[in-house]
Amino acid sequence: MNTKVTPKILSGFMELLPAEQLAFNKMRDTIRDVYESFGFVPVDTPVLELSHILLAKAGGDTEKQIYRFQKGDNDMCLRFDLTVPLARFVAQHQNDLTFPFRRYHIAKAYRGERPQKGRFREFYQADVDIIGSEKLSVAYDAEIIGIIDTALSKLGLSNFKIHINNRKLLHGFYEFLGLQEQSPDILRIVDKMDKIGAENVTACLKDLALNDTQIQSILDFAAITGTAEAVLQALKNTQIENEAFQTGLNELETVVTAIQALGVPETHFMVDLKITRGLDYYTGTVFETLVDGQSWGSVCSGGRYENLAGHYTDRKLPGVGMSIGLTRLFDVLRDAGFIHIGAKTTADILLLPMGDDALTHTLKTAATLRAAGIKTETAAADGKFKNKMMYANKIGVPFVGVIGSDEAAANTVAVKDMDTGTQETIPVSQVVDYVSDKLNTKPQTPIITMNQ
Amino acid sequence: MNTKVTPKILSGFMELLPAEQLAFNKMRDTIRDVYESFGFVPVDTPVLELSHILLAKAGGDTEKQIYRFQKGDNDMCLRFDLTVPLARFVAQHQNDLTFPFRRYHIAKAYRGERPQKGRFREFYQADVDIIGSEKLSVAYDAEIIGIIDTALSKLGLSNFKIHINNRKLLHGFYEFLGLQEQSPDILRIVDKMDKIGAENVTACLKDLALNDTQIQSILDFAAITGTAEAVLQALKNTQIENEAFQTGLNELETVVTAIQALGVPETHFMVDLKITRGLDYYTGTVFETLVDGQSWGSVCSGGRYENLAGHYTDRKLPGVGMSIGLTRLFDVLRDAGFIHIGAKTTADILLLPMGDDALTHTLKTAATLRAAGIKTETAAADGKFKNKMMYANKIGVPFVGVIGSDEAAANTVAVKDMDTGTQETIPVSQVVDYVSDKLNTKPQTPIITMNQ
Repeated sequence: MNTKVTPKILSGFMELLPAEQLAFNKMRDTIRDVYESFGFVPVDTPVLELSHILLAKAGGDTEKQIYRFQKGDNDMCLRFDLTVPLARFVAQHQNDLTFPFRRYHIAKAYRGERPQKGRFREFYQADVDIIGSEKLSVAYDAEIIGIIDTALSKLGLSNFKIHINNRKLLHGFYEFLGLQEQSPDILRIVDKMDKIGAENVTACLKDLALNDTQIQSILDFAAITGTAEAVLQALKNTQIENEAFQTGLNELETVVTAIQALGVPETHFMVDLKITRGLDYYTGTVFETLVDGQSWGSVCSGGRYENLAGHYTDRKLPGVGMSIGLTRLFDVLRDAGFIHIGAKTTADILLLPMGDDALTHTLKTAATLRAAGIKTETAAADGKFKNKMMYANKIGVPFVGVIGSDEAAANTVAVKDMDTGTQETIPVSQVVDYVSDKLNTKPQTPIITMNQ
Repeated sequence: MNTKVTPKILSGFMELLPAEQLAFNKMRDTIRDVYESFGFVPVDTPVLELSHILLAKAGGDTEKQIYRFQKGDNDMCLRFDLTVPLARFVAQHQNDLTFPFRRYHIAKAYRGERPQKGRFREFYQADVDIIGSEKLSVAYDAEIIGIIDTALSKLGLSNFKIHINNRKLLHGFYEFLGLQEQSPDILRIVDKMDKIGAENVTACLKDLALNDTQIQSILDFAAITGTAEAVLQALKNTQIENEAFQTGLNELETVVTAIQALGVPETHFMVDLKITRGLDYYTGTVFETLVDGQSWGSVCSGGRYENLAGHYTDRKLPGVGMSIGLTRLFDVLRDAGFIHIGAKTTADILLLPMGDDALTHTLKTAATLRAAGIKTETAAADGKFKNKMMYANKIGVPFVGVIGSDEAAANTVAVKDMDTGTQETIPVSQVVDYVSDKLNTKPQTPIITMNQ
């Protein structure tokens, strides 16, 4: 009758169908539960912020990517990360917050990047940060690394390794070599070691006018590897007399001892003197997380910063935090076939009334099951048994409870286990226990299963 | 040193501090759990949609309020509700969905309304809808009403009443009076009965050129009250011979029977022949939810519609759904003092290491507690015991576990119940059971507590 508009979404945006959405939400909830298990509190700032506040610091590439517009008298932006809103939030509400302030924020951010595989214009970030007032113990750096280990392990991600370094250690070392001025440039170059190789790093360092001895020292330093203990011992053995270096080394040692106490296994972390993180932002501990055998880059990164909100307040707010790029992580895992895509329903059981006289009994039974914590869908639709079972198969519900006039009269349900095909007629009073027991004994599939 | 930008948010946006945010999230999670207990699946569409698609139907006031802008070649909008995105989603993915499609969506929407008390420009909606392909049994209308009752009851909201009516019944009645053409206008006027009173309704109906007999019939009809059974009986007694009226009456009776089977108590619903819902959208069952003694208006409304996505597809997609305006509901409840604002932490216990030699033992103990499901924060900060206890008091954590060098040596924790002030020294191996037992026996405060 009328002209139809072809439904579609903006390019570069992720939209999931129910089974995938359920898997995504399970990932998100798992991360949230881990954050809360460490006592973090949620923050939920507006997606829109005033431009002059959000962009107080930003510039260059970031600013170009921003969704910015006017409405009425307001010049506003969609947030491009969750860190700037955190800085604004903490500065704004500092007198109402208790420090150290431990916040998590799992929400969408927006960047109008050129669409390309694996890059999304709307993406979930799952951030945790601990913000101190004036000072913050380095033990909190270890806690953040402990959260990464717990979160990724709970997700079922295996073969990941958290690479840990310390910026003070690096700056001190470069200062010791007489290269304090070139230090930021050297950091950026060394960070590319694993990508471009030692030869290209050498060439880049030569461009900075470093001499061969300095370059060799830098390469030797970056090449120190082994267990965390071995690397720490090697660093002590260098006997570099520089204050920043010694502070960095002490911090690194404190962090390693603390994450071991938190139970982070040796297989899940290493001291890696090559990683530096790109941002100028970080001032101490830095870390990124790589998955063996995958070219995904870091799936979870972060570090220590000296001052969160210098643009908004004079109060010094040091912090440490990390971020999981959830949308991107889900995307690479899904592409690799590592995500378990399960049912298209949240229901544990689907009740099928057969015939009108069974509907009342079905609805009553459904209410009983729900009150006992069993997620229950009812197929109230008129229709043939075959069609209803086809629907049950399509949504992948684990149990079906058939209720015909016989069952309604006898106050029973014919419960069918959709995995095994077995069917038993159970009195309504026993359905709760029967389904609960069966659900508890069904094997739990982790969200992520990686080929070892 | 540098000029500070004063941190603030856009006016008309809600931002909560931790204790309130935790209460809000608890409300949101409770609603989500109820939706999932009925077997609904989550959908999470992009916040940004292409303007020509999102606005295929919109117009007038809605369009003026929309956040709309250009970026690159794209003309886009922030969604103003979750229903149009649902229509777009179902039309776009219809071949990949299983019908009836049962989706919930709890997310933010945006309207640039003139800021005023209780109106927010960014607001959470918590929607559920069931969408059929070509047809959808009226029993699903009852299910949606059952969800409202379950959700609001779980939140702790008392004294609410779901007012139920049927549009076909009303149209049939007006048709019977020979007023089919004026029917939409009459609906709008009658809907205001409780607000403007019978006298003003009479005046408005006179403006439509209705005669006195017609007006009296309409007023008499709207005045039919009593128990659901009594109203249904009164409607039958009218013996109005009109097809739409009889269909509507049958639907209303089916809905009432089904919600009774679902366990919705008589105190929580009524057939109310005065409510019609404003939108032309609805075609059958309509409902809204009022809270006794409160001038909040409807806190949860919805109904049956004939065709969800006529602008996007030829496929007929009838549905029934409802929406809770979560941000607004939270706001009125908070203003009324009905929201329980609790701790500023998610942690069950805060471990306080006293002295450097206690840190390792504290972190190990924390890991043990977390693995057993106890949310555990560690106060790793250096500092005096007094300051750490002050922090514990401020965040309102229920238990504190003090670990000094004695406790570390003896592998114990001195656990203090912050409510009662009692303290006991417990071996680490027993802390999990000790804290779990105590947590389980602490009285649970509902999120919402209303003065009766």
